[in-house]
Amino acid sequence: MRKEKKIELLKILNQYQTIKKEKIEKKPSFLSIETARYHLNGNITLIREKIKKNHKDGSAIIVIPVTKEQEIITVIEPRVCIKNGVGVGFPAGYIEENETPEEASIRELQEEIGYQPEQLIPLISFYQDEGISSAYNHAFLARNCQKVSEQQLDPDEYIQYMKFKTEEIEELIQMGYINGSNSLLAFQYAKEKMRRMRK
Amino acid sequence: MRKEKKIELLKILNQYQTIKKEKIEKKPSFLSIETARYHLNGNITLIREKIKKNHKDGSAIIVIPVTKEQEIITVIEPRVCIKNGVGVGFPAGYIEENETPEEASIRELQEEIGYQPEQLIPLISFYQDEGISSAYNHAFLARNCQKVSEQQLDPDEYIQYMKFKTEEIEELIQMGYINGSNSLLAFQYAKEKMRRMRK
Repeated sequence: MRKEKKIELLKILNQYQTIKKEKIEKKPSFLSIETARYHLNGNITLIREKIKKNHKDGSAIIVIPVTKEQEIITVIEPRVCIKNGVGVGFPAGYIEENETPEEASIRELQEEIGYQPEQLIPLISFYQDEGISSAYNHAFLARNCQKVSEQQLDPDEYIQYMKFKTEEIEELIQMGYINGSNSLLAFQYAKEKMRRMRK
Repeated sequence: MRKEKKIELLKILNQYQTIKKEKIEKKPSFLSIETARYHLNGNITLIREKIKKNHKDGSAIIVIPVTKEQEIITVIEPRVCIKNGVGVGFPAGYIEENETPEEASIRELQEEIGYQPEQLIPLISFYQDEGISSAYNHAFLARNCQKVSEQQLDPDEYIQYMKFKTEEIEELIQMGYINGSNSLLAFQYAKEKMRRMRK
Protein backbone atom coordinates (compact mmCIF):
# COMPACT_ATOMS: atom_id res chain seq x y z
CA MET A 1 0.00 0.00 0.00
CA ARG A 2 1.24 3.49 -0.81
CA LYS A 3 2.42 5.48 2.20
CA GLU A 4 -0.08 8.33 1.56
CA LYS A 5 -2.96 5.87 1.54
CA LYS A 6 -1.82 4.32 4.82
CA ILE A 7 -1.62 7.80 6.35
CA GLU A 8 -5.15 8.61 5.16
CA LEU A 9 -6.44 5.41 6.78
CA LEU A 10 -4.61 6.02 10.06
CA LYS A 11 -6.05 9.54 10.20
CA ILE A 12 -9.60 8.18 10.07
CA LEU A 13 -8.81 5.43 12.56
CA ASN A 14 -7.33 7.96 14.95
CA GLN A 15 -10.42 10.15 14.78
CA TYR A 16 -12.72 7.27 15.78
CA GLN A 17 -10.52 5.91 18.55
CA THR A 18 -12.12 5.63 22.01
CA ILE A 19 -10.38 7.83 24.56
CA LYS A 20 -12.73 7.33 27.50
CA LYS A 21 -15.41 4.82 28.49
CA GLU A 22 -17.95 5.32 31.27
CA LYS A 23 -20.33 2.51 32.20
CA ILE A 24 -23.81 3.93 32.70
CA GLU A 25 -26.98 2.69 34.41
CA LYS A 26 -29.54 2.67 31.65
CA LYS A 27 -32.04 -0.01 30.69
CA PRO A 28 -30.85 -1.54 27.40
CA SER A 29 -33.06 -0.51 24.49
CA PHE A 30 -31.39 -2.33 21.61
CA LEU A 31 -30.21 -5.65 23.05
CA SER A 32 -32.37 -8.01 25.09
CA ILE A 33 -32.10 -11.55 26.42
CA GLU A 34 -34.75 -14.24 26.03
CA THR A 35 -34.67 -17.35 28.20
CA ALA A 36 -36.53 -20.49 27.14
CA ARG A 37 -36.82 -24.19 27.86
CA TYR A 38 -36.37 -26.40 24.82
CA HIS A 39 -37.61 -29.97 24.53
CA LEU A 40 -35.62 -32.02 22.03
CA ASN A 41 -36.72 -35.08 20.10
CA GLY A 42 -34.38 -37.42 21.95
CA ASN A 43 -35.97 -36.81 25.38
CA ILE A 44 -33.54 -34.03 26.30
CA THR A 45 -34.56 -30.75 27.95
CA LEU A 46 -32.33 -27.67 27.83
CA ILE A 47 -32.61 -24.13 29.18
CA ARG A 48 -30.87 -21.62 26.95
CA GLU A 49 -30.47 -17.84 26.76
CA LYS A 50 -30.69 -16.03 23.45
CA ILE A 51 -29.71 -12.50 22.48
CA LYS A 52 -32.13 -10.37 20.49
CA LYS A 53 -31.39 -7.13 18.65
CA ASN A 54 -34.22 -4.63 18.60
CA HIS A 55 -36.51 -7.50 19.72
CA LYS A 56 -35.71 -9.36 16.52
CA ASP A 57 -33.18 -11.99 15.42
CA GLY A 58 -30.77 -9.37 14.13
CA SER A 59 -30.18 -10.99 10.76
CA ALA A 60 -27.94 -8.83 8.62
CA ILE A 61 -26.34 -8.47 5.23
CA ILE A 62 -22.75 -7.69 4.33
CA VAL A 63 -21.67 -6.59 0.87
CA ILE A 64 -18.29 -6.53 -0.87
CA PRO A 65 -18.70 -3.57 -3.27
CA VAL A 66 -16.42 -3.59 -6.32
CA THR A 67 -16.19 -0.62 -8.68
CA LYS A 68 -15.79 -0.75 -12.47
CA GLU A 69 -12.10 -0.06 -11.85
CA GLN A 70 -11.95 -3.28 -9.77
CA GLU A 71 -11.47 -1.44 -6.50
CA ILE A 72 -13.13 -2.69 -3.33
CA ILE A 73 -14.88 -0.18 -1.07
CA THR A 74 -14.31 -0.54 2.67
CA VAL A 75 -16.09 1.29 5.48
CA ILE A 76 -14.32 2.58 8.57
CA GLU A 77 -16.39 3.19 11.67
CA PRO A 78 -16.20 3.36 15.45
CA ARG A 79 -16.48 -0.15 16.92
CA VAL A 80 -16.30 0.56 20.61
CA CYS A 81 -16.30 -3.13 21.62
CA ILE A 82 -13.05 -4.01 19.87
CA LYS A 83 -9.40 -3.17 20.50
CA ASN A 84 -8.68 0.51 19.71
CA GLY A 85 -12.40 0.95 19.08
CA VAL A 86 -12.24 1.22 15.31
CA GLY A 87 -13.21 -1.28 12.65
CA VAL A 88 -12.38 -1.54 8.96
CA GLY A 89 -14.87 -3.69 7.06
CA PHE A 90 -17.47 -3.69 4.34
CA PRO A 91 -20.94 -2.13 4.10
CA ALA A 92 -23.34 -4.09 6.33
CA GLY A 93 -26.52 -3.71 8.28
CA TYR A 94 -29.61 -5.33 9.70
CA ILE A 95 -32.37 -6.51 7.38
CA GLU A 96 -35.48 -4.46 8.03
CA GLU A 97 -39.02 -5.78 8.23
CA ASN A 98 -40.53 -6.67 4.82
CA GLU A 99 -37.13 -6.36 3.18
CA THR A 100 -35.29 -9.08 1.28
CA PRO A 101 -31.55 -9.52 1.85
CA GLU A 102 -30.99 -8.08 -1.65
CA GLU A 103 -33.08 -4.98 -0.89
CA ALA A 104 -31.25 -4.49 2.40
CA SER A 105 -27.93 -4.70 0.52
CA ILE A 106 -28.96 -2.07 -2.02
CA ARG A 107 -30.22 0.21 0.77
CA GLU A 108 -27.07 -0.15 2.89
CA LEU A 109 -24.79 0.53 -0.09
CA GLN A 110 -26.75 3.70 -0.76
CA GLU A 111 -26.77 4.82 2.88
CA GLU A 112 -23.23 3.92 3.92
CA ILE A 113 -21.27 4.83 0.79
CA GLY A 114 -23.70 6.36 -1.76
CA TYR A 115 -22.95 3.69 -4.39
CA GLN A 116 -25.21 1.43 -6.44
CA PRO A 117 -24.20 -1.84 -8.13
CA GLU A 118 -25.13 -3.20 -11.55
CA GLN A 119 -25.24 -6.72 -10.19
CA LEU A 120 -25.58 -8.37 -6.78
CA ILE A 121 -24.29 -11.94 -6.44
CA PRO A 122 -25.11 -14.05 -3.33
CA LEU A 123 -21.97 -15.55 -1.79
CA ILE A 124 -22.84 -17.41 1.42
CA SER A 125 -25.42 -17.34 4.21
CA PHE A 126 -24.45 -18.14 7.79
CA TYR A 127 -25.38 -17.87 11.45
CA GLN A 128 -23.52 -15.06 13.21
CA ASP A 129 -23.19 -16.73 16.61
CA GLU A 130 -25.32 -19.86 16.63
CA GLY A 131 -24.87 -20.63 20.34
CA ILE A 132 -26.69 -17.50 21.51
CA SER A 133 -28.39 -15.91 18.50
CA SER A 134 -30.75 -16.65 15.61
CA ALA A 135 -29.15 -13.98 13.42
CA TYR A 136 -28.79 -15.44 9.93
CA ASN A 137 -26.59 -13.28 7.72
CA HIS A 138 -26.17 -13.07 3.97
CA ALA A 139 -23.00 -12.03 2.14
CA PHE A 140 -23.07 -10.55 -1.35
CA LEU A 141 -20.65 -9.44 -4.03
CA ALA A 142 -21.79 -6.14 -5.61
CA ARG A 143 -20.32 -5.64 -9.10
CA ASN A 144 -19.74 -2.49 -11.13
CA CYS A 145 -20.63 -0.14 -8.29
CA GLN A 146 -21.03 3.51 -9.21
CA LYS A 147 -21.27 6.63 -7.08
CA VAL A 148 -24.86 7.92 -7.22
CA SER A 149 -25.25 10.12 -4.14
CA GLU A 150 -23.80 11.30 -0.85
CA GLN A 151 -23.88 9.01 2.18
CA GLN A 152 -27.18 8.98 4.10
CA LEU A 153 -26.19 8.27 7.70
CA ASP A 154 -28.26 8.17 10.90
CA PRO A 155 -27.48 10.92 13.42
CA ASP A 156 -25.36 8.61 15.61
CA GLU A 157 -23.77 6.75 12.71
CA TYR A 158 -20.19 7.66 11.77
CA ILE A 159 -18.82 6.00 8.67
CA GLN A 160 -16.08 6.94 6.24
CA TYR A 161 -15.14 4.88 3.24
CA MET A 162 -11.97 4.13 1.32
CA LYS A 163 -11.24 2.14 -1.84
CA PHE A 164 -8.56 -0.52 -2.01
CA LYS A 165 -7.24 -3.05 -4.50
CA THR A 166 -7.73 -6.74 -3.70
CA GLU A 167 -4.06 -7.09 -2.70
CA GLU A 168 -4.41 -4.10 -0.36
CA ILE A 169 -7.42 -5.76 1.30
CA GLU A 170 -5.23 -8.83 1.89
CA GLU A 171 -2.66 -6.50 3.41
CA LEU A 172 -5.30 -4.94 5.72
CA ILE A 173 -6.30 -8.45 6.86
CA GLN A 174 -2.66 -9.43 7.43
CA MET A 175 -2.08 -6.27 9.47
CA GLY A 176 -5.19 -6.97 11.55
CA TYR A 177 -7.17 -3.89 10.46
CA ILE A 178 -9.95 -5.98 8.92
CA ASN A 179 -10.78 -8.41 11.69
CA GLY A 180 -14.55 -9.02 11.91
CA SER A 181 -15.89 -12.50 11.15
CA ASN A 182 -18.52 -11.19 8.70
CA SER A 183 -15.98 -9.16 6.75
CA LEU A 184 -13.40 -11.95 6.63
CA LEU A 185 -15.91 -14.59 5.60
CA ALA A 186 -17.54 -12.41 2.94
CA PHE A 187 -14.14 -11.45 1.51
CA GLN A 188 -12.95 -15.08 1.35
CA TYR A 189 -16.01 -16.06 -0.66
CA ALA A 190 -15.89 -12.90 -2.80
CA LYS A 191 -12.26 -13.59 -3.70
CA GLU A 192 -13.09 -17.14 -4.78
CA LYS A 193 -16.07 -15.90 -6.81
CA MET A 194 -14.03 -13.17 -8.53
CA ARG A 195 -11.27 -15.66 -9.33
CA ARG A 196 -13.76 -18.07 -10.90
CA MET A 197 -15.41 -15.26 -12.90
CA ARG A 198 -12.05 -14.19 -14.39
CA LYS A 199 -11.43 -17.72 -15.75
CA MET B 1 -21.24 -38.88 0.59
CA ARG B 2 -22.21 -42.52 1.01
CA LYS B 3 -25.90 -43.11 1.72
CA GLU B 4 -25.19 -44.93 5.04
CA LYS B 5 -23.14 -42.00 6.28
CA LYS B 6 -25.89 -39.53 5.42
CA ILE B 7 -28.39 -41.72 7.30
CA GLU B 8 -26.10 -41.82 10.36
CA LEU B 9 -25.88 -38.00 10.31
CA LEU B 10 -29.63 -37.53 9.89
CA LYS B 11 -30.25 -39.89 12.82
CA ILE B 12 -28.17 -37.70 15.13
CA LEU B 13 -29.71 -34.48 13.77
CA ASN B 14 -33.20 -35.90 14.35
CA GLN B 15 -32.40 -36.77 17.95
CA TYR B 16 -31.32 -33.20 18.77
CA GLN B 17 -34.16 -31.46 16.97
CA THR B 18 -36.27 -29.08 19.07
CA ILE B 19 -39.89 -30.21 19.28
CA LYS B 20 -41.16 -27.65 21.77
CA LYS B 21 -40.04 -24.27 23.07
CA GLU B 22 -41.46 -22.50 26.14
CA LYS B 23 -40.29 -19.02 27.04
CA ILE B 24 -39.64 -18.81 30.76
CA GLU B 25 -39.31 -15.96 33.26
CA LYS B 26 -35.85 -16.43 34.71
CA LYS B 27 -33.10 -13.94 35.29
CA PRO B 28 -30.36 -14.62 32.73
CA SER B 29 -27.29 -16.16 34.36
CA PHE B 30 -25.01 -16.57 31.34
CA LEU B 31 -25.67 -13.55 29.13
CA SER B 32 -25.69 -9.95 30.34
CA ILE B 33 -25.78 -6.51 28.75
CA GLU B 34 -23.43 -3.64 29.59
CA THR B 35 -24.28 -0.09 28.58
CA ALA B 36 -21.59 2.57 28.36
CA ARG B 37 -20.88 6.02 27.01
CA TYR B 38 -17.81 6.24 24.81
CA HIS B 39 -15.87 9.41 24.08
CA LEU B 40 -13.97 9.25 20.81
CA ASN B 41 -10.88 11.17 19.78
CA GLY B 42 -12.72 13.24 17.15
CA ASN B 43 -15.10 14.89 19.64
CA ILE B 44 -17.82 12.26 19.16
CA THR B 45 -19.83 10.70 22.00
CA LEU B 46 -21.68 7.41 21.57
CA ILE B 47 -23.83 5.26 23.84
CA ARG B 48 -23.51 1.56 23.01
CA GLU B 49 -24.74 -1.73 24.45
CA LYS B 50 -22.45 -4.72 24.66
CA ILE B 51 -23.20 -8.38 25.28
CA LYS B 52 -21.16 -10.30 27.83
CA LYS B 53 -20.97 -14.05 28.29
CA ASN B 54 -20.52 -15.23 31.86
CA HIS B 55 -19.53 -11.61 32.70
CA LYS B 56 -16.58 -11.87 30.33
CA ASP B 57 -15.90 -11.06 26.67
CA GLY B 58 -16.72 -14.59 25.57
CA SER B 59 -13.61 -15.07 23.44
CA ALA B 60 -13.50 -18.57 22.06
CA ILE B 61 -11.45 -21.01 20.02
CA ILE B 62 -12.52 -23.22 17.16
CA VAL B 63 -10.44 -26.13 15.89
CA ILE B 64 -10.45 -28.10 12.65
CA PRO B 65 -9.20 -31.51 13.80
CA VAL B 66 -7.63 -33.70 11.11
CA THR B 67 -6.70 -37.34 11.73
CA LYS B 68 -3.63 -39.17 10.39
CA GLU B 69 -5.99 -40.63 7.76
CA GLN B 70 -6.77 -37.05 6.62
CA GLU B 71 -10.33 -37.14 7.91
CA ILE B 72 -11.87 -34.07 9.53
CA ILE B 73 -13.81 -34.47 12.76
CA THR B 74 -17.10 -32.56 13.05
CA VAL B 75 -19.26 -32.16 16.14
CA ILE B 76 -23.04 -32.31 16.04
CA GLU B 77 -24.95 -30.65 18.85
CA PRO B 78 -28.27 -29.04 19.74
CA ARG B 79 -28.25 -25.38 18.65
CA VAL B 80 -31.66 -24.24 19.77
CA CYS B 81 -31.32 -20.76 18.26
CA ILE B 82 -30.98 -21.92 14.68
CA LYS B 83 -33.38 -23.48 12.16
CA ASN B 84 -34.21 -27.09 13.11
CA GLY B 85 -32.21 -26.56 16.29
CA VAL B 86 -29.18 -28.64 15.34
CA GLY B 87 -25.72 -27.58 14.29
CA VAL B 88 -22.88 -29.37 12.54
CA GLY B 89 -19.53 -27.72 13.11
CA PHE B 90 -16.10 -28.18 14.62
CA PRO B 91 -14.89 -28.46 18.23
CA ALA B 92 -15.09 -25.03 19.87
CA GLY B 93 -15.46 -23.38 23.23
CA TYR B 94 -14.80 -20.38 25.41
CA ILE B 95 -11.28 -19.63 26.57
CA GLU B 96 -11.12 -20.01 30.34
CA GLU B 97 -9.32 -17.70 32.73
CA ASN B 98 -5.52 -18.14 32.72
CA GLU B 99 -5.71 -20.24 29.60
CA THR B 100 -4.03 -19.52 26.26
CA PRO B 101 -6.01 -20.09 23.05
CA GLU B 102 -3.78 -23.12 22.39
CA GLU B 103 -4.51 -24.61 25.82
CA ALA B 104 -8.23 -24.02 25.34
CA SER B 105 -8.02 -25.82 21.98
CA ILE B 106 -6.28 -28.87 23.46
CA ARG B 107 -8.82 -28.98 26.30
CA GLU B 108 -11.84 -28.68 24.03
CA LEU B 109 -10.55 -31.39 21.68
CA GLN B 110 -10.15 -33.69 24.67
CA GLU B 111 -13.58 -32.85 26.14
CA GLU B 112 -15.69 -32.75 23.00
CA ILE B 113 -14.21 -35.62 21.00
CA GLY B 114 -11.50 -37.32 23.13
CA TYR B 115 -8.75 -36.62 20.57
CA GLN B 116 -5.33 -35.04 20.86
CA PRO B 117 -3.29 -33.51 18.02
CA GLU B 118 0.42 -33.73 17.29
CA GLN B 119 0.46 -30.15 16.05
CA LEU B 120 -1.73 -27.07 16.41
CA ILE B 121 -1.43 -24.40 13.70
CA PRO B 122 -2.99 -20.93 14.16
CA LEU B 123 -5.17 -19.96 11.18
CA ILE B 124 -6.89 -16.64 11.84
CA SER B 125 -8.15 -14.54 14.74
CA PHE B 126 -11.32 -12.49 14.47
CA TYR B 127 -14.09 -10.65 16.29
CA GLN B 128 -17.26 -12.72 16.51
CA ASP B 129 -19.75 -9.84 16.29
CA GLU B 130 -17.83 -6.57 16.59
CA GLY B 131 -20.90 -4.32 16.78
CA ILE B 132 -22.09 -5.75 20.11
CA SER B 133 -19.33 -7.92 21.55
CA SER B 134 -15.64 -7.93 22.44
CA ALA B 135 -15.36 -11.68 21.81
CA TYR B 136 -12.10 -12.28 19.93
CA ASN B 137 -11.90 -15.80 18.57
CA HIS B 138 -8.99 -17.91 17.36
CA ALA B 139 -9.17 -20.64 14.75
CA PHE B 140 -6.67 -23.50 14.61
CA LEU B 141 -5.83 -26.46 12.44
CA ALA B 142 -5.07 -29.56 14.57
CA ARG B 143 -2.95 -32.10 12.70
CA ASN B 144 -2.49 -35.85 13.20
CA CYS B 145 -5.25 -36.11 15.78
CA GLN B 146 -5.48 -39.40 17.64
CA LYS B 147 -8.17 -40.85 19.88
CA VAL B 148 -6.92 -40.83 23.47
CA SER B 149 -10.03 -41.02 25.65
CA GLU B 150 -13.79 -40.89 25.81
CA GLN B 151 -15.58 -37.54 25.55
CA GLN B 152 -15.76 -35.54 28.79
CA LEU B 153 -18.97 -33.54 28.54
CA ASP B 154 -20.73 -31.29 31.03
CA PRO B 155 -24.08 -32.57 32.35
CA ASP B 156 -26.10 -30.33 30.00
CA GLU B 157 -23.74 -30.69 27.01
CA TYR B 158 -24.82 -33.03 24.21
CA ILE B 159 -22.27 -33.59 21.47
CA GLN B 160 -21.74 -36.41 19.02
CA TYR B 161 -18.96 -36.47 16.49
CA MET B 162 -18.47 -37.80 12.98
CA LYS B 163 -15.49 -37.91 10.62
CA PHE B 164 -15.66 -36.66 7.04
CA LYS B 165 -13.33 -36.23 4.10
CA THR B 166 -12.61 -32.67 2.94
CA GLU B 167 -14.95 -33.09 -0.06
CA GLU B 168 -17.71 -34.29 2.26
CA ILE B 169 -17.26 -31.18 4.41
CA GLU B 170 -17.71 -29.09 1.24
CA GLU B 171 -20.87 -31.08 0.59
CA LEU B 172 -22.17 -30.41 4.13
CA ILE B 173 -21.56 -26.68 3.58
CA GLN B 174 -23.30 -26.78 0.19
CA MET B 175 -26.30 -28.55 1.74
CA GLY B 176 -26.46 -26.00 4.54
CA TYR B 177 -25.67 -28.39 7.41
CA ILE B 178 -22.50 -26.54 8.35
CA ASN B 179 -23.68 -22.95 8.61
CA GLY B 180 -22.03 -21.15 11.53
CA SER B 181 -19.68 -18.23 10.80
CA ASN B 182 -16.90 -19.63 13.02
CA SER B 183 -17.03 -23.05 11.36
CA LEU B 184 -17.14 -21.64 7.83
CA LEU B 185 -14.33 -19.17 8.41
CA ALA B 186 -12.08 -21.71 10.16
CA PHE B 187 -12.68 -24.27 7.39
CA GLN B 188 -11.89 -21.76 4.62
CA TYR B 189 -8.55 -20.93 6.22
CA ALA B 190 -7.82 -24.59 7.09
CA LYS B 191 -8.42 -25.63 3.49
CA GLU B 192 -6.01 -22.98 2.21
CA LYS B 193 -3.40 -23.98 4.81
CA MET B 194 -3.72 -27.70 3.95
CA ARG B 195 -3.44 -26.95 0.24
CA ARG B 196 -0.28 -24.92 0.79
CA MET B 197 1.24 -27.66 2.99
CA ARG B 198 0.69 -30.31 0.33
CA LYS B 199 2.69 -28.32 -2.20
